[in-house]
Amino acid sequence: MKKFMDESFLLKTETAKLLYDNYASKLPIIDYHCHISPKEMAENKSYRNITELWLGGDHYKWRAIRSCGVPEKYITGDASDYEKFKAFATVMPKLIGNPLYHWSHLELKRYFGYNGILNADTCDEVWELCNEKLASPEMTAKNIVMSSNVELLCTTDDPIDSLEYHKIIAEDKNFTTKVLPAFRPDKGLKVCDAGYKAYIDSLAKAAEVDIKDVYTLKEAFVKRIDYFASLGCKTSDHGIDNYIPFSLAVNEKEIDDIFKKAYETDGGVSVEDADKFRTYMFKFFGGEFKKRGWVMQFHYGVLRNSNSIEFKKMGPDTGYDVIDGNASSGANLARLLNYMHTGDALPRTVIYSINPADNAVIGTIIGAFQTDSEGGMPRVMQGSAWWFNDNKTGMRSQMVSLANLSAFGNFLGMLTDSRSFISYPRHEYFRRILCNLIGDWVENGEYPADYEALADLIMDICYNNTKNFFGF
Amino acid sequence: MKKFMDESFLLKTETAKLLYDNYASKLPIIDYHCHISPKEMAENKSYRNITELWLGGDHYKWRAIRSCGVPEKYITGDASDYEKFKAFATVMPKLIGNPLYHWSHLELKRYFGYNGILNADTCDEVWELCNEKLASPEMTAKNIVMSSNVELLCTTDDPIDSLEYHKIIAEDKNFTTKVLPAFRPDKGLKVCDAGYKAYIDSLAKAAEVDIKDVYTLKEAFVKRIDYFASLGCKTSDHGIDNYIPFSLAVNEKEIDDIFKKAYETDGGVSVEDADKFRTYMFKFFGGEFKKRGWVMQFHYGVLRNSNSIEFKKMGPDTGYDVIDGNASSGANLARLLNYMHTGDALPRTVIYSINPADNAVIGTIIGAFQTDSEGGMPRVMQGSAWWFNDNKTGMRSQMVSLANLSAFGNFLGMLTDSRSFISYPRHEYFRRILCNLIGDWVENGEYPADYEALADLIMDICYNNTKNFFGF
Amino acid sequence: MKKFMDESFLLKTETAKLLYDNYASKLPIIDYHCHISPKEMAENKSYRNITELWLGGDHYKWRAIRSCGVPEKYITGDASDYEKFKAFATVMPKLIGNPLYHWSHLELKRYFGYNGILNADTCDEVWELCNEKLASPEMTAKNIVMSSNVELLCTTDDPIDSLEYHKIIAEDKNFTTKVLPAFRPDKGLKVCDAGYKAYIDSLAKAAEVDIKDVYTLKEAFVKRIDYFASLGCKTSDHGIDNYIPFSLAVNEKEIDDIFKKAYETDGGVSVEDADKFRTYMFKFFGGEFKKRGWVMQFHYGVLRNSNSIEFKKMGPDTGYDVIDGNASSGANLARLLNYMHTGDALPRTVIYSINPADNAVIGTIIGAFQTDSEGGMPRVMQGSAWWFNDNKTGMRSQMVSLANLSAFGNFLGMLTDSRSFISYPRHEYFRRILCNLIGDWVENGEYPADYEALADLIMDICYNNTKNFFGF
Repeated sequence: MKKFMDESFLLKTETAKLLYDNYASKLPIIDYHCHISPKEMAENKSYRNITELWLGGDHYKWRAIRSCGVPEKYITGDASDYEKFKAFATVMPKLIGNPLYHWSHLELKRYFGYNGILNADTCDEVWELCNEKLASPEMTAKNIVMSSNVELLCTTDDPIDSLEYHKIIAEDKNFTTKVLPAFRPDKGLKVCDAGYKAYIDSLAKAAEVDIKDVYTLKEAFVKRIDYFASLGCKTSDHGIDNYIPFSLAVNEKEIDDIFKKAYETDGGVSVEDADKFRTYMFKFFGGEFKKRGWVMQFHYGVLRNSNSIEFKKMGPDTGYDVIDGNASSGANLARLLNYMHTGDALPRTVIYSINPADNAVIGTIIGAFQTDSEGGMPRVMQGSAWWFNDNKTGMRSQMVSLANLSAFGNFLGMLTDSRSFISYPRHEYFRRILCNLIGDWVENGEYPADYEALADLIMDICYNNTKNFFGF
Repeated sequence: MKKFMDESFLLKTETAKLLYDNYASKLPIIDYHCHISPKEMAENKSYRNITELWLGGDHYKWRAIRSCGVPEKYITGDASDYEKFKAFATVMPKLIGNPLYHWSHLELKRYFGYNGILNADTCDEVWELCNEKLASPEMTAKNIVMSSNVELLCTTDDPIDSLEYHKIIAEDKNFTTKVLPAFRPDKGLKVCDAGYKAYIDSLAKAAEVDIKDVYTLKEAFVKRIDYFASLGCKTSDHGIDNYIPFSLAVNEKEIDDIFKKAYETDGGVSVEDADKFRTYMFKFFGGEFKKRGWVMQFHYGVLRNSNSIEFKKMGPDTGYDVIDGNASSGANLARLLNYMHTGDALPRTVIYSINPADNAVIGTIIGAFQTDSEGGMPRVMQGSAWWFNDNKTGMRSQMVSLANLSAFGNFLGMLTDSRSFISYPRHEYFRRILCNLIGDWVENGEYPADYEALADLIMDICYNNTKNFFGF
Repeated sequence: MKKFMDESFLLKTETAKLLYDNYASKLPIIDYHCHISPKEMAENKSYRNITELWLGGDHYKWRAIRSCGVPEKYITGDASDYEKFKAFATVMPKLIGNPLYHWSHLELKRYFGYNGILNADTCDEVWELCNEKLASPEMTAKNIVMSSNVELLCTTDDPIDSLEYHKIIAEDKNFTTKVLPAFRPDKGLKVCDAGYKAYIDSLAKAAEVDIKDVYTLKEAFVKRIDYFASLGCKTSDHGIDNYIPFSLAVNEKEIDDIFKKAYETDGGVSVEDADKFRTYMFKFFGGEFKKRGWVMQFHYGVLRNSNSIEFKKMGPDTGYDVIDGNASSGANLARLLNYMHTGDALPRTVIYSINPADNAVIGTIIGAFQTDSEGGMPRVMQGSAWWFNDNKTGMRSQMVSLANLSAFGNFLGMLTDSRSFISYPRHEYFRRILCNLIGDWVENGEYPADYEALADLIMDICYNNTKNFFGF
């Protein structure tokens, strides 16, 4: 029997251990997609206790605690920080098999030097240990990131964002982690939602463009893209939610009418028209990104805010999003990529679905758009298993699917997609799973025990591919 | 090499064996969802031979035998009981990897003490052995159930059922298994089907309510719910078949019109109207069940009676249902639960899909409706892998998915969904698979080897959670 | 650690090795579905070098090379044969986990006696070794097929094909492999596509029938079916692409009108009408095949030619097809089979989906149409995991799913679906995976270690079942 989460955690073979110990564990992290706060980095925030750091905004943990029948008071309500921590510690044993169980213990080990097991019995000792450590200056936002060996990270930012915190962060020469913005223009495409008019007005102001039609809308976006680029931005992020749209307007005039109607009615556009508008805009964005060498990230398959009572109370990103099992996206994704490609508007692209049933569909679609990619890398990639799939079986399944259907040696590896400053052990988790998979293949005689080639594979997947693909 | 189906069947690690031998194997069974006949229990039926008991109504076995090209004569036709048994024994070797292979051998071991292998060669010795045992008084319906360590079981019953057999069963103080009805009002929602008028008339009679509109329909159902409750009923069962409906009527008047049309035309309502009616009625039922503390069970994803020639000959539940791969149910399920929840009509609920591709969708949806659940348990659960998924890989996949996405420690464990009196070894099968999975996690260092916590987990999943969730 | 791809490749247990070595490896191959060229066989073609043989038409390899960012010049463009081989050799290490990695090395071992590892370093030695062997007379099309132990193969042929090469092949008494045509009438059903008129004209000419309505269309097809049958044809192949249609016309007149419109407008029929036409025609074909004892093969779930730029340049079957994730096919498949069955038009049938998420759906649907199958075999089968699923995990998943849901002992085993003359090691790959799976079941105590029964299973799945089902 292996010891609980020791050095060889998740590494079953000697080859796996060798690859992890000698290569994967030593590489810096490029976290090309996350949601941590630039403001907290700029201010080099300290944390009053482990509850603020760990449970303050992490809806993964909130879901898990709620799933154990714990009243909301002890999760996001007015209970004390200690009571909230106690609630989490108490449900831990029920989270057997959940990645939170592993992430939490990895975080306790790596950031707090705690090698025990978190549960109701150990709650107090962990509470005291963590809070003591958090009181020291080495546990501020920037120091946590640097000590995690993060070479570069991309936050997620609205086009109207001033990026003021990114400037402040860049000025601190002692902070060796590069922090870049990522361009997420989702709100500009929500032509069915109330608030659209106000958003366009904000965008007009940020871009200093008088937006009166779709042409000036695009002009405003171009100005913001250039502004983001001036601060080092290399990638965009598009949350497409439920399904990939694909619908062509008769002409640009139709799109312009849709946009004007959306503005005038503040989001009063039909779903059919919204799909036309989104299809058109994705091609527009793709063209702009391609010119600039940016990477475009698409993710889909989520039904957001599915509990409307809690949405009214708590707003978005509070643990109420679910997988939308709609399967129409596969063909639409292929059609959308083809539409962009035929218009010379398909930049380097990463595709993610929240639904693990989509792995094979995505794995085959990317292969149809690689012809004459530039720079010795594919044009279109499947992104890592994330969010609901960011667990041992989900990651392994995504990797095996990608290997079956594509050239696994080009895989981009891990991203955290996290709001937490101490979630970098998810890269460790990924790397262990990766090394174990490759170790299995080698020790089963399915791939040669050529350790030079294997070292290259590991270093490419964990680090080099991302660096090259994004041009960091 | 392990011996064929010995004591450590499906248990690969020492931890798995320890957990199974010391805990799982010793717990009584609560079979909260099955289809065995209350009449046969009330009459304490004896079986003339193994064919009547084993092959008389088990459409799982019928499908398997048909799949080997055996003429229907030897399955449900006019061949002799011996010939039918011989047909089954003869195809057994082809059922490698099928759960029937394991279930059948477990049943031969546990009920008949036969430890050999059933095939054409052993057919006669098994036939004789089983029939001899079946001639003894210990092999009657009630004795079989009691000797299977069944503490409680829920049959499945139509609201118009008099439940007379449940009363007779309850009067037998020597029969220690509690037998409760479950409320399955499917027929009252089939507003597109011929026979609707007659069903509503029967319901009116059973409830002693003059049903003339949707209000009196609800009144009739409430009376039957209360009648079922008076006999200990704690749960309902809703077979939704193909897909989860979600469609809102403009107002209650529209629903009333749909109901009246359905009655007057004997099922002549459009599919769109049926979806509105069902959505409305699920909320009505949910509200009634919530008030009474009942558990509501939803299952979907099945296309019933897909072979119309055989349906005409044999009727429903004869082995011609298939998985309906329609994937629209995910979003609808979330919307339906939200609709019920916002109307304070979401009781404790269990969700099952027949399609294994839905595991992840369900696993995420349940997590969005747990906030402020009562009694320290979740409000919405994913049910066990059943029917077409009730096999080694299907059960393990469902458990791993649930563990990845929720708090596995709250899982409700197994149910048979069976029409057979000797299908309780399916609980053994489940418990072995469960203990093996947890054993793997522990021995791989993914969960602490804390045997007290592990014992609690096993006992909760196999017994306590069901008892608490249903309030048995 | 196992050696890279040695004799026990993919065989983890002693039982697996025994079953593979003693039984599976010795059986001849029946490749009942492939796309190799009858012309090249009739001409007993020689190959100028390994590039022509290996990379001349294999879009699996093209996709893989493109996915490594290699310019098209070095794949299908005007680079030299050596440069193209070099490009493939160079990307090989990145194909870790891809079945191409295994197939290619198996082919190098079995046909060229090369036991090393193909990569940039060994490119030249492999190039020289292979080309030397290809210059010898033993490496012609016919000799390759014979030396692969192929007893029988079915090519894929259009109804208008003269089958002249099949006649030539049959006349060579020294060529011991039987080569039969398979009837693929897809083009006659493409009533939405330009080119339809010309195709119908060609069919009219080939059949010597004046096609003026749907009745004469069917007459023409019947003549071609009989012509194919006269040359030994035993099976049809229907590429249904995106989804299974099911839509019933009001009467035959409507179908006739659709056909006439398709002809007059050269493919100007609506999708709705096309679905009606296809539904009708599948039943017509099914009836004709059933009368003749043919096997009907359906495959679906593919979006073809998804990259329109490359389709214009390169035409179909060049590596731009993808999985269509549309999930509506499940219920339609059941309805279509039922419609055929009720009209006594459901012959022996094999169903394949390109989407691995459909395994369980298909596995349950086949079970609903087995009643009173003829000849001691099922009527409807799930075909092998192929195309995008033809890999270690895909094949194992399909087998486990089929075993869970049906009688695995009746499985038809492998087909190559290949355009390459040296792809027969895919049967070896399949047989190893099969023996390993059964070995696991036996050594885990899930199936008796009865080696006589096991030998029967292996021989049935690898050879006998196909022979019996198709009536070869």
